[in-house]
Amino acid sequence: MGSLASEKTVVGWAARDATGHLSPYSYTLRNTGPEDVVVKVIYCGICHTDIHQAKNHLGASKYPMVPGHEVVGEVVEVGPEVTRYRLGDVVGVGVIVGCCRDCRPCKANVEQYCNKKIWSYNDVYTDGRPTQGGFSSAMVVDQKFVVKIPAGLAPEQAAPLLCAGVTVYSPLKHFGLMTPGLRGGILGLGGVGHMGVKVAKAMGHHVTVISSSGKKRAEAMDDLGADAYLVSADPADMTAAADSLDYIINTVPVHHPLEPYLALLKLDGKLILMGVINQPLSFISPMLLLGRKSITGSFVGSITETEEVLQFCVDKGLTSQIEIVKMDYVNQALERLEHNDVRYRFVVDVAGSNIDDTPEPPAAA
Amino acid sequence: MGSLASEKTVVGWAARDATGHLSPYSYTLRNTGPEDVVVKVIYCGICHTDIHQAKNHLGASKYPMVPGHEVVGEVVEVGPEVTRYRLGDVVGVGVIVGCCRDCRPCKANVEQYCNKKIWSYNDVYTDGRPTQGGFSSAMVVDQKFVVKIPAGLAPEQAAPLLCAGVTVYSPLKHFGLMTPGLRGGILGLGGVGHMGVKVAKAMGHHVTVISSSGKKRAEAMDDLGADAYLVSADPADMTAAADSLDYIINTVPVHHPLEPYLALLKLDGKLILMGVINQPLSFISPMLLLGRKSITGSFVGSITETEEVLQFCVDKGLTSQIEIVKMDYVNQALERLEHNDVRYRFVVDVAGSNIDDTPEPPAAA
Repeated sequence: MGSLASEKTVVGWAARDATGHLSPYSYTLRNTGPEDVVVKVIYCGICHTDIHQAKNHLGASKYPMVPGHEVVGEVVEVGPEVTRYRLGDVVGVGVIVGCCRDCRPCKANVEQYCNKKIWSYNDVYTDGRPTQGGFSSAMVVDQKFVVKIPAGLAPEQAAPLLCAGVTVYSPLKHFGLMTPGLRGGILGLGGVGHMGVKVAKAMGHHVTVISSSGKKRAEAMDDLGADAYLVSADPADMTAAADSLDYIINTVPVHHPLEPYLALLKLDGKLILMGVINQPLSFISPMLLLGRKSITGSFVGSITETEEVLQFCVDKGLTSQIEIVKMDYVNQALERLEHNDVRYRFVVDVAGSNIDDTPEPPAAA
Repeated sequence: MGSLASEKTVVGWAARDATGHLSPYSYTLRNTGPEDVVVKVIYCGICHTDIHQAKNHLGASKYPMVPGHEVVGEVVEVGPEVTRYRLGDVVGVGVIVGCCRDCRPCKANVEQYCNKKIWSYNDVYTDGRPTQGGFSSAMVVDQKFVVKIPAGLAPEQAAPLLCAGVTVYSPLKHFGLMTPGLRGGILGLGGVGHMGVKVAKAMGHHVTVISSSGKKRAEAMDDLGADAYLVSADPADMTAAADSLDYIINTVPVHHPLEPYLALLKLDGKLILMGVINQPLSFISPMLLLGRKSITGSFVGSITETEEVLQFCVDKGLTSQIEIVKMDYVNQALERLEHNDVRYRFVVDVAGSNIDDTPEPPAAA
């Protein structure tokens, strides 16, 4: 991988434009700084956000872009001041690789809310270079943004926990919703939603999956262990379930009405949004006032919470449901994910794909 | 006032139709039940909701309707099982006079969130008769919904606390926002807003009044003691104040954009709606997610919280700013209130208006 002082050439799979098509791309990693860890990527999960970024759905994409922010790998080099990791450690990297360390959120160890946070890819690092993600042979990451994968957790299982897993764990913890016996709703059964069912069940909650049709009933109840299944298009079912839930984790990433879900909440119930939706969402104020309900949101989780959810999954014997693919399948995987055709998370077997040996395609590819 | 067994004829000022014009109206109170308290009305505050109800803005008004839900009076009769009150006690009645006593909110002593709550007026009591409010010579109220006005609080001062006061106190308490040093915003400087400034200041908060123009700057800062004044129409001021507030009490009763105020909130900040607004309000989801901010609401307060805010005002020497009027001025007062032409709350001197002697107007009045 080269010496401490020299730049390392790596190969990632990058989008070159808003088609979002990924193809091999050679680039260099920054020199390993005093607190940097060089991570040889083993597995990397595919998140819906990867599609948004690769296809410039949010309007701020820069190319070439190597996506991937559910990264599990092996420490192959450490800077001289790295204290937390040693060569050979299996570690994870998530959505954030930098923060200001000085603002209120940073000082409160919720660096994901720092206004100067640096995203794992499609951002600019402190040295002025673009950040590139985990669909790559390796990453260089400050040790502060690296987590240890605990013993007892398979690396491919750990990958989805670094974004999807902590995204559901963090708000349940923050909003005081870890008490056994609570009644929770999970709206949307994708990568985040399926982790929501599993994490909430492991906390001892009564979990209702809410979906627009009955199609996922069997998998929600039988495969994932949900306690109830509610079809939002069925007015009678929705009326019967009114005023019954302490919270709803809302993973829907597109515009939708909120009133039907606010009606499901009990007094003091919380509708927790996870999806970045660029169209405005609306609600009727009496629905909040007359039940002291909240509409709120949460964004991934802190490094501390990421470590917690990893250990939580070990302690509870909780596994994610994943489909492992090789890197040369990543474009099909992205397309299938865009059509919700995955149960429930793709994880790319990066180390098993020998991407360092992949020839660079012609410029017009 | 008549014996325990007989109905009492009283005179209130009632709206007869959606013009909302009030005029004298004779009606009978129910027989005093075992747990009922007969309250001779001394003062009654005028709330913006009284206009909405009198003019059928919410579409559910029934006439004749005697408004008024900030009622202070003297106990003149008690049922045989009344234990909490004695003749001569000065007491208050607020927005709610009944609840189911069996649901989750009732069992948690937040009866204002009971789905079967009975409103002080424009509702139907358990005996099938219409409820009528405090613009009347007397009311009969179950002791559960009566609060003691503590010594040291003038009755006219107590009136606005029974709705406006507890409406701001309750969410600050419930959402954990009583800590000194917090930075709060008060959006809208009407009856509720001015109590918001005073209650928040008394809790030791740094209070910013947010208004659409600079017109109320002097009164907010000098008369009410706010620490800062922010003109929402001034983009530079709003940008400078971004990310600075722990909460905003939003008293605006008409449709308005929420984004400018969400931007003022810090991480975990709360936008607390007080206004029943029939048009949907909208927001952009990333504004919640990326700061874990909440949009929530709160509806008056419990009987317990009402007792607390009354004592809080005694302890802090806090007074409301009121304009006392006689009953024959009530229509002008309602009209002035509708145009925000009051600093800050009208209180009707009911006992000083001799309304029992007011002749009933002709039917066409």
